[in-house]
Amino acid sequence: MKPGLLNSPDNTALRAQSRGERGLVAEIRARVPPPPAWLTVGIGDDAAVAEPERGALEILTTDSLVEDVHFDRRLSTPADIGWKALAVNLSDIAAMGGTPRLALLSLGLPDSIGAHEVHALVDGFLTLAAGARVTLAGGNITRSPGPLIVDVTVTGFVRRRNVLTRSGGRIGDDIYVTGDVGAAAAGLGYWKETKETKEIAGIDACIARHRRPEPRVRIGMLLGRNRAASACMDLSDGLADAVRQVAESSGTGARIDAASLPIPAAAQTWFARSGGNPVAAAIAGGDDYELLFTVPRRARGRLATVVRQSRGVPMTRIGTLTADRTLSVFRDGREEPLPAGFVHF
Amino acid sequence: MKPGLLNSPDNTALRAQSRGERGLVAEIRARVPPPPAWLTVGIGDDAAVAEPERGALEILTTDSLVEDVHFDRRLSTPADIGWKALAVNLSDIAAMGGTPRLALLSLGLPDSIGAHEVHALVDGFLTLAAGARVTLAGGNITRSPGPLIVDVTVTGFVRRRNVLTRSGGRIGDDIYVTGDVGAAAAGLGYWKETKETKEIAGIDACIARHRRPEPRVRIGMLLGRNRAASACMDLSDGLADAVRQVAESSGTGARIDAASLPIPAAAQTWFARSGGNPVAAAIAGGDDYELLFTVPRRARGRLATVVRQSRGVPMTRIGTLTADRTLSVFRDGREEPLPAGFVHF
Repeated sequence: MKPGLLNSPDNTALRAQSRGERGLVAEIRARVPPPPAWLTVGIGDDAAVAEPERGALEILTTDSLVEDVHFDRRLSTPADIGWKALAVNLSDIAAMGGTPRLALLSLGLPDSIGAHEVHALVDGFLTLAAGARVTLAGGNITRSPGPLIVDVTVTGFVRRRNVLTRSGGRIGDDIYVTGDVGAAAAGLGYWKETKETKEIAGIDACIARHRRPEPRVRIGMLLGRNRAASACMDLSDGLADAVRQVAESSGTGARIDAASLPIPAAAQTWFARSGGNPVAAAIAGGDDYELLFTVPRRARGRLATVVRQSRGVPMTRIGTLTADRTLSVFRDGREEPLPAGFVHF
Repeated sequence: MKPGLLNSPDNTALRAQSRGERGLVAEIRARVPPPPAWLTVGIGDDAAVAEPERGALEILTTDSLVEDVHFDRRLSTPADIGWKALAVNLSDIAAMGGTPRLALLSLGLPDSIGAHEVHALVDGFLTLAAGARVTLAGGNITRSPGPLIVDVTVTGFVRRRNVLTRSGGRIGDDIYVTGDVGAAAAGLGYWKETKETKEIAGIDACIARHRRPEPRVRIGMLLGRNRAASACMDLSDGLADAVRQVAESSGTGARIDAASLPIPAAAQTWFARSGGNPVAAAIAGGDDYELLFTVPRRARGRLATVVRQSRGVPMTRIGTLTADRTLSVFRDGREEPLPAGFVHF
């Protein structure tokens, strides 16, 4: 924590409600469950101190949500935002085959936010943290002159032999995806256009995917532990981007079978109505936080083990890593180049 | 990394110069020195993977700099901002008695920033990282609809018996501070008022303290390793705040001797000229990133060892932890209540 020395206006709402940053930190601390034994120093000192997990490697990731870039406060509640800020980081740990363990929460609060909204945000964060057995160990609160900013760091652990990277894929490996694709993009697109949440049957589930993605923590962990995948990556930037990154990192090409893509019916309806091609839109759309992974022929039995333990999370074979270095989609009897994924700026 | 799905304008400058986020990440990666052997997976995958330091506890901290709250781009160069974003985190590791090791860098980039400025920011970050032997292992880049946002996470390590917390102080312990206090607040105050950097002799060094604070990494490490301090905290929020927090956490009071405070002459001149009381202003001013620590009588010999190894960093005894739970300043023969420290909002 550092002073804000420059010209930002005071947040009088927060000051009145929470007696400043220290009051807010104390209130957050009171909401956090008792720390596990491995957390030597938790919230409230200069830094957290933790015993490392024995015999494991540590995974570290950081990702942020910025208002009006990643969320709109007219659609996402504070609790949604807190949930999602943790979810996008858990998804990165899952993509490495790891088990998440500890989180740091860094908040940039605009003058327009009140203490009750900060508490709701923290509660959304802690709800997912409890489900994923992640301990909030520290963080930081500062003012923001504009957007609400939620920056999260998560650490986790993984045995060395179970690490999943993007580069482990080999020619002939099958490409799989968990859950479905295009839901979050369709839900957000529909809401932006209509400000409605109900008209297309099932579109509310797509909107919920944008607001509260379910990171595939259990699946990532199972893929790692069972050594069922040769490569893995999450779908934060969309399927096309993930296929491209895994293929490029692995030194292969990839062919995706359009007919096999698990695109929800509501998303297909919305993409078609808004004038797009449903497959192209679903492939390009980000924010689904599913996992893309590749499975060598010899690991099919191990994948079956993962499927048995997956508690109903669908895993769909959608294509193959190929020897020729091109990226293509097989659709309606024709091979087309893979559309570009989401571009950030 | 996640898509920016909402209404932010494209950053066409960055897109033209760096071919989007992936291009920028590749350019940053090319600037980072070869990774150490303990970094199993570095920049470019979903997350970093590292071998923990053997036989040590892990320290974790996160802290962010937000434009127009923590820095003004008319005063601080991009390289200054990158340096300081790491420095404030290293200061937290130092305050725990630890050795920093690994950093994650999360950037929120406004449309007004170009690729060359991002590179300069990263270079400032990497300059300090090299000096402190810290490895940049990953991070995140997103757009910002308003301010430039630099959020950094640093991990480090410390033996269990060497951890320094805020709560270890005992009645009668001497209170020390490294370096000097009030410099950054005076430098920033002077610049805000005058937009000059030279008129008062020595004020340029005060401004430099605001722009590029030197975290006391070596001193924190030495205090921990030599077990010379009973409690420690950094001066991010000013001396008054640090004294208050250490005393409250330790269950003691504190008395500070105003005459002993190491306030630079230029800062005293500026504080007096701007109508304030130099001691009160120096005590309240934040951003110095010095260390406050307490030394029991039995550890005085160990402190002498630290002083011998400190390479000239001054350490000044400024007061004592007291049995009565009040916080006071002894000044001009009178005892006064300790002024309140910096309030964030």
